[in-house]
Amino acid sequence: MTVVLLTDFDDYYPASMKGVLERHGVAYTDGYHGVSRGDVHTAAFALKEYAREYPAGTVHCVVVDPGVGTDRAAVAVESGGQVFVGPDNGVLHPAATAAGDPTYYLVTDRDPEVATFHGRDVFAPVAARIAAGEPPSELGEETAEHEELAFHEARVVDGEAKAEVLYVDRFGNVVTTLSAEEMMDHVDFGDTIGVDGKELPLEPSYGHVAEGENLATVGSHRQLEIAVNDGSAAEEFDHSVGDTVHVDVTGSS
Amino acid sequence: MTVVLLTDFDDYYPASMKGVLERHGVAYTDGYHGVSRGDVHTAAFALKEYAREYPAGTVHCVVVDPGVGTDRAAVAVESGGQVFVGPDNGVLHPAATAAGDPTYYLVTDRDPEVATFHGRDVFAPVAARIAAGEPPSELGEETAEHEELAFHEARVVDGEAKAEVLYVDRFGNVVTTLSAEEMMDHVDFGDTIGVDGKELPLEPSYGHVAEGENLATVGSHRQLEIAVNDGSAAEEFDHSVGDTVHVDVTGSS
Amino acid sequence: MTVVLLTDFDDYYPASMKGVLERHGVAYTDGYHGVSRGDVHTAAFALKEYAREYPAGTVHCVVVDPGVGTDRAAVAVESGGQVFVGPDNGVLHPAATAAGDPTYYLVTDRDPEVATFHGRDVFAPVAARIAAGEPPSELGEETAEHEELAFHEARVVDGEAKAEVLYVDRFGNVVTTLSAEEMMDHVDFGDTIGVDGKELPLEPSYGHVAEGENLATVGSHRQLEIAVNDGSAAEEFDHSVGDTVHVDVTGSS
Repeated sequence: MTVVLLTDFDDYYPASMKGVLERHGVAYTDGYHGVSRGDVHTAAFALKEYAREYPAGTVHCVVVDPGVGTDRAAVAVESGGQVFVGPDNGVLHPAATAAGDPTYYLVTDRDPEVATFHGRDVFAPVAARIAAGEPPSELGEETAEHEELAFHEARVVDGEAKAEVLYVDRFGNVVTTLSAEEMMDHVDFGDTIGVDGKELPLEPSYGHVAEGENLATVGSHRQLEIAVNDGSAAEEFDHSVGDTVHVDVTGSS
Repeated sequence: MTVVLLTDFDDYYPASMKGVLERHGVAYTDGYHGVSRGDVHTAAFALKEYAREYPAGTVHCVVVDPGVGTDRAAVAVESGGQVFVGPDNGVLHPAATAAGDPTYYLVTDRDPEVATFHGRDVFAPVAARIAAGEPPSELGEETAEHEELAFHEARVVDGEAKAEVLYVDRFGNVVTTLSAEEMMDHVDFGDTIGVDGKELPLEPSYGHVAEGENLATVGSHRQLEIAVNDGSAAEEFDHSVGDTVHVDVTGSS
Repeated sequence: MTVVLLTDFDDYYPASMKGVLERHGVAYTDGYHGVSRGDVHTAAFALKEYAREYPAGTVHCVVVDPGVGTDRAAVAVESGGQVFVGPDNGVLHPAATAAGDPTYYLVTDRDPEVATFHGRDVFAPVAARIAAGEPPSELGEETAEHEELAFHEARVVDGEAKAEVLYVDRFGNVVTTLSAEEMMDHVDFGDTIGVDGKELPLEPSYGHVAEGENLATVGSHRQLEIAVNDGSAAEEFDHSVGDTVHVDVTGSS
């Protein structure tokens, strides 16, 4: 029943949340605290990607919350045996949907000390109580209303796909919205694909091309990833999140 | 009996300290390792802020220590059921004072391998022994002498306060030395206050103003915080730690 | 039986690895995730330095792996009661050699979901199984072949040593390949040594010289370290990893 923390607090603030969790005597771990400030979309992607590795019983406590202290709701979402706690701004939605059939609870049993730090005053206490065995249904009422957030999913039509940049990782790898499932019906590793008019070798991993060479690959998330071996595709292709990427899968080996 | 680590080691050095703690079989967690190099004042502020969330029995191990290997003392401080271990440079003092009635012990039972890494060779072993149940009194003698460090506390006189910048967080929020307790006798949320001659709405949280707008709020530490919704007040107001901030609380709603 | 993580993933990727470890129910901790991208040499140095602090039974899981998904092998190395899991690119070699008499096992029992994230799909599961009690010999065959990586060791000849820069830490301290053992036969603290033609006081620690002053000292790794008290020797001496450093230990106090 470990609490996994995901925040955009690259500061001492997670230490305050951990104090709350220690007070409740529950186990916890740092997921990731380096989300760009208020970047709900990126946090939702990271959460969806890593949450699927965790066992049933895990409580994800997410604080990427530009609307802290406003009337946005706080929710606890049960899905697939895991619980997702955080602001109702969509950040939990993709992970909860991927995990199973989500049930949303409005967290109403709360009394924050200040309106500016719900991570410490609302989400950590709620996550702790759930990790300690309290069912989410005791923390608030089930609700059908909640914010949604969906990632674009590119489709291949006539050998071409108009994808988007979904994520850029610390290596500058550019993750797109074209899934391997969709793409690999049309091409195989060893083939060449077109990316924004450039011909790129589609390879299983980075080291299959020489250092500094561009490639297309299937990233950890099983999406088309544009990469440069030991380099930054984000720089090379001047791409950032939300950009359109034209993919051509009619090429051959 | 968890050991909480606070350092300015943004490097592999905490991993060495954790090895020591593993050897002693005690639990530990990362508080924060991103303190600016040698910034005792900021570390003291962060420690004071988060230590109050932790339960009795917690051992705080603090290594922000520009005087490592000199004749500055090493201390273990018992206060309010928690123990604070670190260099005697004032970094522990505000947290220990806030926690209760501190008793200082000089750590004399120590034999560092080198003079440059007391985090590994002195503070982690001492924190581990205390977390394992050894009383601080067995590690050294009680001492009345120790370094102190106090944060400025601004007072409102005739509706005005000369505050200081106490902390700037990763969001660029500017924490001042004017406490909410002192300030909220004079104004309420919804009022306007003057900050360095600018009129700012005093709001419970960031999202109560439009994106990019300035505001005054009460931060997690219950101090007046100057902020920009989804922006950096430190940049907007050109403020850094130690700067003077003129606050006027005579304005009205 | 704690798993210690060392990666160059300054992103959400360690959270995926932790999910795998949670699924296996084993304890784990963050060693360090800030290794420069693909910097096998630096990771090997950090691992060697901190691994020696950990007790027998520790499993080090290392993912600094520019060759992920290529035909480089995956290995588990038993040495001195610890186990080192990672790519066979030399990154484990100095630590395993320092820990005892290493036995290398080729990890052949593996089936990665994608070729781009062996941290999640190969190394974390293997580390988890070993931490849970499975002997490395059950995960693959013992092998005599493996990559090696050795750090330069400077020697003093006629009072002079041609050392190299081994590591630059976050403070800008420059760690050299001249060991304290080799150097301290010739000089004592309080003496002066020559570094690239400059005379530097050799002191036990940074605070023995005034702020902003250069010094030579013995760092946490018991190597000659060039430092500036509260400053950056890497900037002052314009040194980066691999640079040659001329050291003269014929000077006197």
